[in-house]
Amino acid sequence: MDPRVDDHAETLVDWSARIEAGDDVVLRVAEGAHDLAVAVAEKLGARGANLVSVYGSDEISRAYLQGHDGEFDEDPEHELALYERADSVLSLGGGRNTTALADVPSDRRQSAARAHEGIREARLATDWVSTVHPTRSLAQQAGMAYEEYQDFVYDAVLRDWEALAEEMAQLKDLLDSGTEVRIVGDGTDLSMSIANRIAVNSAASVAYDSHNLPSGEVFTAPVADSVEGSVTFDVPMTVSDRRVRDVELTFEDGEVVDFTAAQGEAAIAETLETDAGARQLGELGIGMNRGIDQPTDRILFDEKMGGTVHLALGRAYASNFPEGYEDERNESAVHVDLIRWMDEGSRLEVDGEVVQEDGLFAWE
Amino acid sequence: MDPRVDDHAETLVDWSARIEAGDDVVLRVAEGAHDLAVAVAEKLGARGANLVSVYGSDEISRAYLQGHDGEFDEDPEHELALYERADSVLSLGGGRNTTALADVPSDRRQSAARAHEGIREARLATDWVSTVHPTRSLAQQAGMAYEEYQDFVYDAVLRDWEALAEEMAQLKDLLDSGTEVRIVGDGTDLSMSIANRIAVNSAASVAYDSHNLPSGEVFTAPVADSVEGSVTFDVPMTVSDRRVRDVELTFEDGEVVDFTAAQGEAAIAETLETDAGARQLGELGIGMNRGIDQPTDRILFDEKMGGTVHLALGRAYASNFPEGYEDERNESAVHVDLIRWMDEGSRLEVDGEVVQEDGLFAWE
Repeated sequence: MDPRVDDHAETLVDWSARIEAGDDVVLRVAEGAHDLAVAVAEKLGARGANLVSVYGSDEISRAYLQGHDGEFDEDPEHELALYERADSVLSLGGGRNTTALADVPSDRRQSAARAHEGIREARLATDWVSTVHPTRSLAQQAGMAYEEYQDFVYDAVLRDWEALAEEMAQLKDLLDSGTEVRIVGDGTDLSMSIANRIAVNSAASVAYDSHNLPSGEVFTAPVADSVEGSVTFDVPMTVSDRRVRDVELTFEDGEVVDFTAAQGEAAIAETLETDAGARQLGELGIGMNRGIDQPTDRILFDEKMGGTVHLALGRAYASNFPEGYEDERNESAVHVDLIRWMDEGSRLEVDGEVVQEDGLFAWE
Repeated sequence: MDPRVDDHAETLVDWSARIEAGDDVVLRVAEGAHDLAVAVAEKLGARGANLVSVYGSDEISRAYLQGHDGEFDEDPEHELALYERADSVLSLGGGRNTTALADVPSDRRQSAARAHEGIREARLATDWVSTVHPTRSLAQQAGMAYEEYQDFVYDAVLRDWEALAEEMAQLKDLLDSGTEVRIVGDGTDLSMSIANRIAVNSAASVAYDSHNLPSGEVFTAPVADSVEGSVTFDVPMTVSDRRVRDVELTFEDGEVVDFTAAQGEAAIAETLETDAGARQLGELGIGMNRGIDQPTDRILFDEKMGGTVHLALGRAYASNFPEGYEDERNESAVHVDLIRWMDEGSRLEVDGEVVQEDGLFAWE
């Protein structure tokens, strides 16, 4: 077995999930994630944790949903009990077909999700971590050869997380003590206030309230009505199943007042029309994972790319709002991330101080 | 997909497990049983049952057990809760390597099993059913080509169970009203009392208190000290990992007083030495599944072969003992089935009446 599979398992169990003896762990294994699951199971055994393996098969989900009439029971007791009593839920993504559920009517999927909301909440109340095992199907989605994609995933996952967490802590401190952020670059001059916000050091560990492996970003929430100026996003994305490229947004008093896109303009228009909150920003994120050097159309990786920033239209995360400021949280049914490279000619400033220039942080 | 997979799923869900709307079902899926699991999931959805899929991977079990120090927590809460709240547990066997756990020390496996005894009991308290999906690994164990083994399994599983249950009911009635059983044939003349016993019609359905698919046998328990005479078993078996062939046992006052075997005599000797109960019979079973016409060294199938009888050294099943007669149940740490063909020249009598001769029942 590729020794990186074992390293991945160790990173997941020890750095990310902080598994200890006696922990009741649910391991959710996608169809193609068997090898990683075996490596994780060995670590869980060695730590003295207790293991239930759940088979997270998209083909089983499809068959079940296709057979069902769509009137789902609310939070089936056995599944709810499993997650309510679990300490940790480790989800190993990595299917054999990213479109395995494509022919299930979306209203049936939504009904099932609504009926199982209590189970979802129970799962999110555990020390949960999601990661992916590199499969051929994910390589295909990324437009890569299989071996190339394996290298890509392991470069992203197998970081010196302790060192990265320390580096990210520097940026978090700057953002927590600063009030004004300015992003400057090609087609871009955007400013916003981040007063009374807490930046999150997303270091791929439950110890940092960070639940994805890989992670590697610091994110905060702009004061919604403070955003002024224009910004372009040169990383291609998929928004509502449509490709979107070179989006430019112009803000006045925090609201998008003008927008263009080289491709997928209609998807952006629809996003903005969702609700009032969709025309404001809910997140400013700064990607700091240098192991991710190209987009693969998977937000779990793309938004963490070292040398990028992303802004999200719509819903803000609760974790960015200190007590007493929860009311300022931007609400929306959507949270659509858009990403720009901060390369040659780009600059990130906090209170007039240059934090990043030409893609490099001041301390790099 | 082979249409027989779908028929297998329907038999399991409807005939065997009697799944109804609202049932909380755990589906345990072995590594190679994915296709059957997909077909079963579709039926479960269609019946309005609720589904949790558990990944029953031997390679994950091996890795976990190899990593563990052997001091297992007793009945981990999350797993116990899952099974305690389940209505049905459907286990789909069919691994990719029947010896996947071969290098795990047996004391570690036993420690794990002992620590999880409460979970096992919770599972057995549900409407559980075990079946197997025909895999290449099981074909290999049976010494068959893959396609040949598929035919073998589906011939055994896809019976007219309703008709077979009725036929078996005739034999159950004969055994329930009779007191003396005699088995005669080549190297065999054995008699025993079955007074005050209840025969079980094992018709592969929880409605018959029968939990294996396929099944197809009627079994009862001899009065332990009533067994007299000799019997030979010409179906080859594996006992304690050793091949055993042409075993002959001689009984006096219900105890084995002499034995020989053409192969594996030591395995029989060890079995008999286990405890006092191991030298007495705990079961008389009569195989009635005509879909199973050859042994494959898998007791789930072998003991159900139409035209065979089997006798088990050791532990009797509680289900054969009516109220007030539980004390007569033979106790032992072992339950070792031995099988003989009731072909040409063989005869099964109940109270002197010929029930089966030359492999055919009186009503055939």
